[in-house]
Amino acid sequence: MGLTEKLREIGSLVEPLLERYLSKDASDEFREVVLHQVRTGGKRLRPALTVLSCEACGGKAEDALPAAAAIELVHNYSLIFDDIIDRGEVRRGLPTTYKAFGEAMAILAAVHYREAVSEALNETNDPLRLHKLFSKAIKKLVEGERLDILFERAGREDEYIVRRRYSEVTLEDYLKMIECKTSSLMEAACAAGAIVAKAPEHMVRALAKYGRNLGIAFQIADDILDIFGEEDKFGKKIGKDIIEHKLGNIVILLGLRRGSVEERERLLGLLSKDRVSEHEARGAIEILSSLGVRDEAYEYGSSFVSRAKEALGVLPPSEAKEMLIELAEFSLKRCY
Amino acid sequence: MGLTEKLREIGSLVEPLLERYLSKDASDEFREVVLHQVRTGGKRLRPALTVLSCEACGGKAEDALPAAAAIELVHNYSLIFDDIIDRGEVRRGLPTTYKAFGEAMAILAAVHYREAVSEALNETNDPLRLHKLFSKAIKKLVEGERLDILFERAGREDEYIVRRRYSEVTLEDYLKMIECKTSSLMEAACAAGAIVAKAPEHMVRALAKYGRNLGIAFQIADDILDIFGEEDKFGKKIGKDIIEHKLGNIVILLGLRRGSVEERERLLGLLSKDRVSEHEARGAIEILSSLGVRDEAYEYGSSFVSRAKEALGVLPPSEAKEMLIELAEFSLKRCY
Repeated sequence: MGLTEKLREIGSLVEPLLERYLSKDASDEFREVVLHQVRTGGKRLRPALTVLSCEACGGKAEDALPAAAAIELVHNYSLIFDDIIDRGEVRRGLPTTYKAFGEAMAILAAVHYREAVSEALNETNDPLRLHKLFSKAIKKLVEGERLDILFERAGREDEYIVRRRYSEVTLEDYLKMIECKTSSLMEAACAAGAIVAKAPEHMVRALAKYGRNLGIAFQIADDILDIFGEEDKFGKKIGKDIIEHKLGNIVILLGLRRGSVEERERLLGLLSKDRVSEHEARGAIEILSSLGVRDEAYEYGSSFVSRAKEALGVLPPSEAKEMLIELAEFSLKRCY
Repeated sequence: MGLTEKLREIGSLVEPLLERYLSKDASDEFREVVLHQVRTGGKRLRPALTVLSCEACGGKAEDALPAAAAIELVHNYSLIFDDIIDRGEVRRGLPTTYKAFGEAMAILAAVHYREAVSEALNETNDPLRLHKLFSKAIKKLVEGERLDILFERAGREDEYIVRRRYSEVTLEDYLKMIECKTSSLMEAACAAGAIVAKAPEHMVRALAKYGRNLGIAFQIADDILDIFGEEDKFGKKIGKDIIEHKLGNIVILLGLRRGSVEERERLLGLLSKDRVSEHEARGAIEILSSLGVRDEAYEYGSSFVSRAKEALGVLPPSEAKEMLIELAEFSLKRCY
């Protein structure tokens, strides 16, 4: 079985579980609101990581399914809030929960998601350990989102945020932010798979390390796609991070380091404007393009792909292990 | 020891736990945001219910503390979201988390609260059972808040809400709403106390029933205070429910049943206005006052106080049991 097929298979196993956990204790009227977010679809990458990690440790896919569903529910939980925080109206071509039902209902739906996560974890073979793992991961996610917001140069009026904003973001700051924002769930997804496979500690740690580095590479690729992707292929607006005033994008950070004083000032000036037009964003992308930071970002990302693959060294050979290796490579390659 | 003293003692035992669970995994900068909500204070009634329920079942207070902290954290979690949903700026004389730090940070703080709840539950002597109990309670809370919003006659522009609003609210609808919105946590608080005391099932059920009925009586008293309270003594704006267009207040509901066609129309017309002035709210309060529904609401509430006390019949005599009885009486009496 190829990787794409395997992902599809795992998706089709997890899908009904998502609906089941979300439907539990939801009134008929609320169910429509609650199911909206998971029904916008998605790659279901995180549950695939859980199932593959479980299998790579010698476990059976079916033992991994409640944990796999739980991690996908956490991901969707965070997306509902992201859309409220960023006033996001469209996701994967469909209205967001925030847009379709309003802020109040979206908040209530998100709170319900968190309890569906808990219900899913209660059905795993090691609930207490997974409750702890997931709580830690969600708190890291919150910290990552917090930093990402504080790395914005403009666009929010909350006095507290305006006062606390970073005027400069180092590569170290960036790495910390994406380790929290993106790696936390991928790390938890992989570790959870090893845990439900009853794998020895060193394997749990190895898969956590794999997931952490995969997450970093994955986010770097997302950053590159945000600036240089093809709008049709990628399905997202290009330059969204520039329009959203973000310093927390590796391409922008590297551009600021490499650019001349004038280029640097033009980029920073643009990011700090109250509103950035698409035309202005394209101008910034041209500067970034001329600086050759796309390759630099890609190379930076590939060091994390290597680390992710290295971490798998302790695992015995298996089809699942090969797929995890392939996934690590794909995580970055998809942006080229 | 008197009830007031006992409540203060329990509060002082729980307080440091709230801060400890919330501080775990919060960065220094975020801690200020996170601790704000619990530092606005409160009666700490729910943790007291947990501790007293535990003691009434023969358990020790110290065994109840993590669960007691957890329930207070859930309460504060819900308050942060309530203030976002209702744009609440002041709570107990202090700025809300929403007002002090802005919506984005308030959402992140609330998400962190939910994980602090999980951490607290992991430290109880029956984590898995309490995780289940708490998830159910939080989902009920969400349903209660959802209904409360749909019982509003105006004030929100979300198309979904405008479309789904109740044009009429029966006493049965009301009871269902407050059973979810207010009773769910009180029920869970009491049941959790019995569970950590390792009480037999019939006692857990009895305390759950006590908490459920206490919650109803408590909410009825809150409703009465909202309409007829003294602003200084109660510390809240009087007629807030009228200003917020709520049909979900027992006094308003009974007033609509008892009033003449004209009074009914005047009340409904007022609740449906985009903005209700304080002057207009006072006019509505005068109508409600003249209809004598205050006593009717009080009497309705006292039937739930009786049921709450009745439920305690299966417990052996103890000081804690006496205090639970006193609390049930106080829950309603405080509004007279």
